[in-house]
Amino acid sequence: GSAAQTAIECNTNCLVENGRLRHHPLSNQEENQRLLAHELSVKGRFDNIVPVLKRIAGLQHEVDFSDRAQQIAREQLGFELPAQILADAWIADLDMRALYGECVMQTVSLMAAQAELNNPHRGTDEAVAFFLDSGYHAVDISPCSDGRLKGLVRYILRLPDGAVRSRKAYAGAMFDVDANVKRWIETELMRFREGRPVTADAGTRYLKVVVYHWSSSDPTHEGCAAHCSNVTKAAEAGLKRLGEFRQAIENSFCCGASVDTLLIGVDTDTDAIKVHIPDAKGEMSLHRFIDNMELYQSSANDDPSAARLKIYRAIQAASAVGGWGSGEGEPHEGMRRLIATLLINNLSQIDYVCSYRGGRYADIGHAERFISVGDGFEEFQLRNLAYFAHLYTVEEGATDMDVGISIFGKLNIKHGLPAPVAIHYRYDSRVPGCRERTVERCRRVKMAIESRYTSLSQKGLLVCGMTVQDKRPGSPIERVDAETP
Amino acid sequence: GSAAQTAIECNTNCLVENGRLRHHPLSNQEENQRLLAHELSVKGRFDNIVPVLKRIAGLQHEVDFSDRAQQIAREQLGFELPAQILADAWIADLDMRALYGECVMQTVSLMAAQAELNNPHRGTDEAVAFFLDSGYHAVDISPCSDGRLKGLVRYILRLPDGAVRSRKAYAGAMFDVDANVKRWIETELMRFREGRPVTADAGTRYLKVVVYHWSSSDPTHEGCAAHCSNVTKAAEAGLKRLGEFRQAIENSFCCGASVDTLLIGVDTDTDAIKVHIPDAKGEMSLHRFIDNMELYQSSANDDPSAARLKIYRAIQAASAVGGWGSGEGEPHEGMRRLIATLLINNLSQIDYVCSYRGGRYADIGHAERFISVGDGFEEFQLRNLAYFAHLYTVEEGATDMDVGISIFGKLNIKHGLPAPVAIHYRYDSRVPGCRERTVERCRRVKMAIESRYTSLSQKGLLVCGMTVQDKRPGSPIERVDAETP
Ligand SMILES: [Zn+2]
Ligand SMILES: [Zn+2]
Ligand SMILES: [Zn+2]
Ligand SMILES: [Zn+2]
Repeated sequence: GSAAQTAIECNTNCLVENGRLRHHPLSNQEENQRLLAHELSVKGRFDNIVPVLKRIAGLQHEVDFSDRAQQIAREQLGFELPAQILADAWIADLDMRALYGECVMQTVSLMAAQAELNNPHRGTDEAVAFFLDSGYHAVDISPCSDGRLKGLVRYILRLPDGAVRSRKAYAGAMFDVDANVKRWIETELMRFREGRPVTADAGTRYLKVVVYHWSSSDPTHEGCAAHCSNVTKAAEAGLKRLGEFRQAIENSFCCGASVDTLLIGVDTDTDAIKVHIPDAKGEMSLHRFIDNMELYQSSANDDPSAARLKIYRAIQAASAVGGWGSGEGEPHEGMRRLIATLLINNLSQIDYVCSYRGGRYADIGHAERFISVGDGFEEFQLRNLAYFAHLYTVEEGATDMDVGISIFGKLNIKHGLPAPVAIHYRYDSRVPGCRERTVERCRRVKMAIESRYTSLSQKGLLVCGMTVQDKRPGSPIERVDAETP
Repeated sequence: GSAAQTAIECNTNCLVENGRLRHHPLSNQEENQRLLAHELSVKGRFDNIVPVLKRIAGLQHEVDFSDRAQQIAREQLGFELPAQILADAWIADLDMRALYGECVMQTVSLMAAQAELNNPHRGTDEAVAFFLDSGYHAVDISPCSDGRLKGLVRYILRLPDGAVRSRKAYAGAMFDVDANVKRWIETELMRFREGRPVTADAGTRYLKVVVYHWSSSDPTHEGCAAHCSNVTKAAEAGLKRLGEFRQAIENSFCCGASVDTLLIGVDTDTDAIKVHIPDAKGEMSLHRFIDNMELYQSSANDDPSAARLKIYRAIQAASAVGGWGSGEGEPHEGMRRLIATLLINNLSQIDYVCSYRGGRYADIGHAERFISVGDGFEEFQLRNLAYFAHLYTVEEGATDMDVGISIFGKLNIKHGLPAPVAIHYRYDSRVPGCRERTVERCRRVKMAIESRYTSLSQKGLLVCGMTVQDKRPGSPIERVDAETP
């Protein structure tokens, strides 16, 4: 493997030789550098807001304040501040809470727009072909909504943007079986009616993946909050929900309707994954899995082809395990190929955390920059960037919302900064009136949030921004005004 | 036509000969008598509650009060009263509000169970065959949620129970296009994947019907509240929404995907319908329609086959109309057959209103017995029996709910009686966990209603009952307890 330029203080996970960091033979260094640049640029933008606003605050009693503030904002943040807030500064002091909220919203939109420019391949044939190679016409992933899993698709699993049909996150990865059955139905109709992405007789499958998580450094405190940081509970619950989904499809549709399922765990401290290997019948066990951190270590000194072989052998070995974890044979060939690909992809991410984070994230806990409500921004999914509440009404999603507000109680509110809430929903421009209804939903959800947290809202400690976006890949993000026009 | 036994005071709509009521040659008198018995029995049960409770209230200070009250309730209402409420009567006075609420909920369940026993044909091949005869594999009707349209399917249109795929009601008949597209997708998948009810190559169609309404006696006050009692607005809005649905299907799916649409109006004073005749391209106009009250009058003296012929000629004549209402030819044969069937069926209902209601309902305004929240009870759909709020969350359905509470402000609350709210949702027993999630939804909606109308709720002027029911035809109604177990 190649050696990093400088010696870093590393933990025992990392591959160190003569005090220097080594890379795993299968890790993709170019991609790692690209992803690092992206992460630093996006997070830097958000982390820059407070210092810039401090500087601006210091100027508020000068005569040419508005002009100077705007110049600083343009140069340092990339956008202008609301003129009215600056103009009103002479009356009371500058409304820093409103200004901060506005800056977060503007940065979200700016970053989403930039990410879109940098990722022109979303939704292309290339992305679809990725899973078709393993025999899957659709892959649907439900991770936990924890902010530390936000980099799942692009960083941890290194999947091409647009390859995953749905990646809706739920507290504790407890996805909505009924909604998922509906999504399955839509996918099936496309295949049967229009032969998209392949015809129904091609023999491809639908794959549903659940991703749970734990913290290897502080397992009893920094694991999944929805499962009380109990990793066994989290994995068991995921396995059960997957079984329910599969059973729902098998019970509701005849002619051998079924789906493949896969359970994956993530150590949020190192981003290493654990893959639970299905047997020949598609059944999984909590006791039959591959720990990718072990594979990372054990294949570190191999050449690339030997390392690759070791991965396929690990799948065979896991399938042959006895006792609690014993199953009925190996998974089918497409599933084996898919698991191998995921494991290899994740080796690059383990290397990424070693190269740039000393093998273990410093922010093992929460450090989100905003609360993302609704459909979320597919454009930039980064670890600890956002707390995600995938809700259509606050009435149903109150629990998720309360958790988010309590996280921001510690991160922002106790320092006097508001919790920034980015309400974002996607619409289908092919359906008449859908955009108008989606805009209405934004406003209704905003009202419901403000009424649930009235006291915060009245003190300016809760700032909601609203945006909508067409579902077609590459569509711009459109800001929604608070007032009904 | 046959003559009724006694002379009735009739309005000008009715067919009167020598001071006696005559029936239309095509009306089904046996069915009319069956439907009358059903209506009187169900409404009688509800209208009996107050007199029985008054009688019981008069006994509350007697020694054997509980026993005597229970005996009266069993004999007069068909069920027992909650023992605790009776037992507590000696402390304060009898809690009549709680008792009334409980009686309404018990009566709802009892009536639904009885209706189920009397209608064993729901969901059978017979029902499906009804529309397949006209070339439709699925028919989906969206009436306004107004209580006066609750008898639409079984009384006004005389359709067999189970023939209609969906009859979800919306304020102003403004159905949810997005939800309807999802229902269309499910129907299509069944056809393509499982050949149900017929295979995709059978050339059948999907029909979406919207039903608006007006009041011929008091058009500017007793029309559709959601459209400010403006019948032109109501019809226009229905036509527009139908067009949007059709366009959504055509835009979102290729290979010539489309749907047939039909707009029907109902005069809620007489139950006579107005059918807007589609042209050869499926387009409709507000100015091209058949008024069934006119047909009823003009064919009253014909023999049955001449009357039948007149109906088909009326469709031809409407299709040939010029000016504002001109279209491009006649509708296709299946649509013509369907329209003729609907018109003939409705002749029986016009006769029903003439025979038993003097040609015009006495309760042209609101006289609902309870508020039905959620999926509603398919088992008994009767005019003015329930105000319907088809909602999944109070956050989204607040407007509908407010209208219902305001109607019951006049009907019940100003007399000191509570507004009875029957929360009812259906679940799919084939989907694991669906029942539990549906029970949760009942409780969540109940909480949201009680918190929206806190002051009424605290005074006992709002009583919510909760029930769930499996989606399969013939499933029993299951009561849900208020407390989490
Ligand atoms: Zn390291
Ligand atoms: Zn979690
Ligand atoms: Zn009459
Ligand atoms: Zn109406």
